Amino acid sequence: MTTPALAALRARFGDHCSTARPVLEAHGRDESGLDFALPEAVVFAQSEEDVLSALQLAREHGLAVVPFAVGSSLEGQVIPVRGGLSLDLSGMKRIVAIEPGGFQATVQPGVTYPELNRLLRSHGLFFPVDPGAEASLGGMASTNASGTGAVKYGTTRDNVLEMRVALMDGRVIRVGSKARKTSAGYDLKHLFIGAEGTLGVITELTVRLWPRPAELAVLRCTFATIAEAAACAVSVMHAALGPERLELLDEEQLRAVNRHRGTAYPERPTLWIELGASSRAALDGALELCRELCLDAGGQTLHAAFSEAERASIWEARHHAYYALRALYPNHANLSTDLCVPLHRLPDVLAFTRRRCDERGLHASFVGHVGDGNFHVLFHAAPDDHAGWATIHEVYGEMVTAALEAGGTCTGEHGVGLHKRAYLAQERPDSLELMRGIKALLDPEGLLNPGKIL
Amino acid sequence: MTTPALAALRARFGDHCSTARPVLEAHGRDESGLDFALPEAVVFAQSEEDVLSALQLAREHGLAVVPFAVGSSLEGQVIPVRGGLSLDLSGMKRIVAIEPGGFQATVQPGVTYPELNRLLRSHGLFFPVDPGAEASLGGMASTNASGTGAVKYGTTRDNVLEMRVALMDGRVIRVGSKARKTSAGYDLKHLFIGAEGTLGVITELTVRLWPRPAELAVLRCTFATIAEAAACAVSVMHAALGPERLELLDEEQLRAVNRHRGTAYPERPTLWIELGASSRAALDGALELCRELCLDAGGQTLHAAFSEAERASIWEARHHAYYALRALYPNHANLSTDLCVPLHRLPDVLAFTRRRCDERGLHASFVGHVGDGNFHVLFHAAPDDHAGWATIHEVYGEMVTAALEAGGTCTGEHGVGLHKRAYLAQERPDSLELMRGIKALLDPEGLLNPGKIL
Repeated sequence: MTTPALAALRARFGDHCSTARPVLEAHGRDESGLDFALPEAVVFAQSEEDVLSALQLAREHGLAVVPFAVGSSLEGQVIPVRGGLSLDLSGMKRIVAIEPGGFQATVQPGVTYPELNRLLRSHGLFFPVDPGAEASLGGMASTNASGTGAVKYGTTRDNVLEMRVALMDGRVIRVGSKARKTSAGYDLKHLFIGAEGTLGVITELTVRLWPRPAELAVLRCTFATIAEAAACAVSVMHAALGPERLELLDEEQLRAVNRHRGTAYPERPTLWIELGASSRAALDGALELCRELCLDAGGQTLHAAFSEAERASIWEARHHAYYALRALYPNHANLSTDLCVPLHRLPDVLAFTRRRCDERGLHASFVGHVGDGNFHVLFHAAPDDHAGWATIHEVYGEMVTAALEAGGTCTGEHGVGLHKRAYLAQERPDSLELMRGIKALLDPEGLLNPGKIL
Repeated sequence: MTTPALAALRARFGDHCSTARPVLEAHGRDESGLDFALPEAVVFAQSEEDVLSALQLAREHGLAVVPFAVGSSLEGQVIPVRGGLSLDLSGMKRIVAIEPGGFQATVQPGVTYPELNRLLRSHGLFFPVDPGAEASLGGMASTNASGTGAVKYGTTRDNVLEMRVALMDGRVIRVGSKARKTSAGYDLKHLFIGAEGTLGVITELTVRLWPRPAELAVLRCTFATIAEAAACAVSVMHAALGPERLELLDEEQLRAVNRHRGTAYPERPTLWIELGASSRAALDGALELCRELCLDAGGQTLHAAFSEAERASIWEARHHAYYALRALYPNHANLSTDLCVPLHRLPDVLAFTRRRCDERGLHASFVGHVGDGNFHVLFHAAPDDHAGWATIHEVYGEMVTAALEAGGTCTGEHGVGLHKRAYLAQERPDSLELMRGIKALLDPEGLLNPGKIL
């Protein structure tokens, strides 16, 4: 960064601009742990005006701008691979409005979804997208994050009504509508959701809220193989039970969870199925049907958890699965895949993946939001095990090809970031040109989060 | 159209190109009945190749191209106001694939949603978006149509997984994914949904299917005022009952329905609430709760319909409401508004609208997808009643302003077309420029459905 650029940043932002080494380092990595690159300065934005000023200075001085809040991305999205400015939005934490009667809340982008959900509890409402990490809502919109709740409530995309977005040319536009649906012109909202900060900077979001079901239970059921568990998930989805969550964990993943949390879940391929209803009678009816479907599909141990404590413990275990596995191999580096396929193809794509991992002798554990056809394989190996990593990437490539042939996608919820650009090109060779055209329209100098997606 | 242009069309399309007056007239109006303009020729496309050829000839000869299928649009979307070519896709009716296990069907754009639903019945699945008219799926995607099912299942936007779109430059791109969710790059799918054929021509769609609930019932409940009915709708939405449908009809609308169909529904502001469940016990529980909410909100006559025949009759009546009202005033012209507001603002925006209609002495009836905050006022007056129409447009303008101030939109499901361009500009002054930039990127000559949206 040039001296005049830094001077201009300091003049505008004072103490809210930092070049201290620990601050730069805190903005140089994400949860993937695979990459590291320092920004040249960090600006802590407190308001939309700050964001606009930062974009203006970036434009004037030709600085790259990388939006940052929590740093929980899994594909290197927040890593400033071309230096420049890390634009930290974590201080933009204002709850602008909660409208329980309108099922909506308006927040600044640095608010995290657990923070919002704590405030919503007294209204009997919640924001249902739960990627697990303590993610910010701006970041979740930027990668179209989802998680266990998506099977019932959809992804972040489906739960953002309206946003304010600061553009590189100095304008702020309002996209979407606070109404639940609109057909008013081109839908620009969905262009910014999942754009990973490469088209504009989200400065405010109005998100959709949902009533909490009055009654909830989690059914745990084990199976002989993950393909059998996946086939059961398909039949549960067909029964119009509308599960709140429908998760698959394999034996290795449960071993990690048990070790990490001191639990004693059976270490076999397992489905965790949460059902909700407006009354206990309705819940019991749904549970009975679900049990039958599990038994018909070869399910073995069955256990239903009703208490809030037991349910919370189950979902905390699921949300920490990634960290549990990392803890099991503390000296290993990790890579999580994120394929998503049409549900009817899930059992065979899962079986293919498991077979290839076994044939190539890879350490791999499987977890999946299987009601959506989305599953993660967590690969790990010593950082310097070059042969191991080469094999991982070979198998990963085969998996992507299999998912695409099944009509699926290389990323269901983590986004493209740095690591999946080649897979994106494989998935969408026909639309990269249009994506580039849109990028050029909104960011002609290529300053917004360069090196990501395209 | 120049002689060489017509000769080129005839050479390529033979009998599938027509300039016969009755054919041109059949492509010159839509359900709004407000406008009329003839195309210079109609091409009946049978395939994606036909669509590409038509676009190529349009490009070579500078012809406007207006996609057409059923002509059920309500805002003049299919009307060729600048002449040129009406590109009739109604012959593209192939069911490419039905994948019940993947909850998806792939169809050509001329397939209508009732046609698709007849085929899906034996699979226990359905496509839940039901705008009422016998609309084509390509047209529904183009206006982001919805209807009574949207309160539970979302709009067309939410139920299109993937599309193939023919672009003006001769390419075909695949947007979206057959997987239920994806975070793979910029979401181009949502750009084409709701674009009313101004950015490209949809040549294939993969839509999302849902299991039919095993048990269904429709609760009918009358109220003293529409504001009271709307307030009840809000409380039903809060109870996590997840209604399949939640419709409001006012006394005038019910009078039209009774007259048109020989029914005897009480002619008072009414909610029609459909509840679904996986068992009769669960349904009974939900109905009981719903009845209580209705009574608490001032509901009077309550009636539950369980039989398929009675439920079908109710929804047929609802779907024909627009035609019933037109039949009541056969010599009048009509105008349907389509405001949508955040749910907590619905009672007061409805009350304001009713008051202004009464104060200005307007004939107006109200129907609404009130669980979504979406309602239609059907205005009517003799075509030559210029003072009447001037008043209608004045009140309509006040309604739009009230809806926008409430955070809502001028169109929940009908789209912009010809008639709402000024309202779109009022709603989104900050994003018109970006919309125009995207239009220029995809259709630099402005040949795709000119005069619509922008």
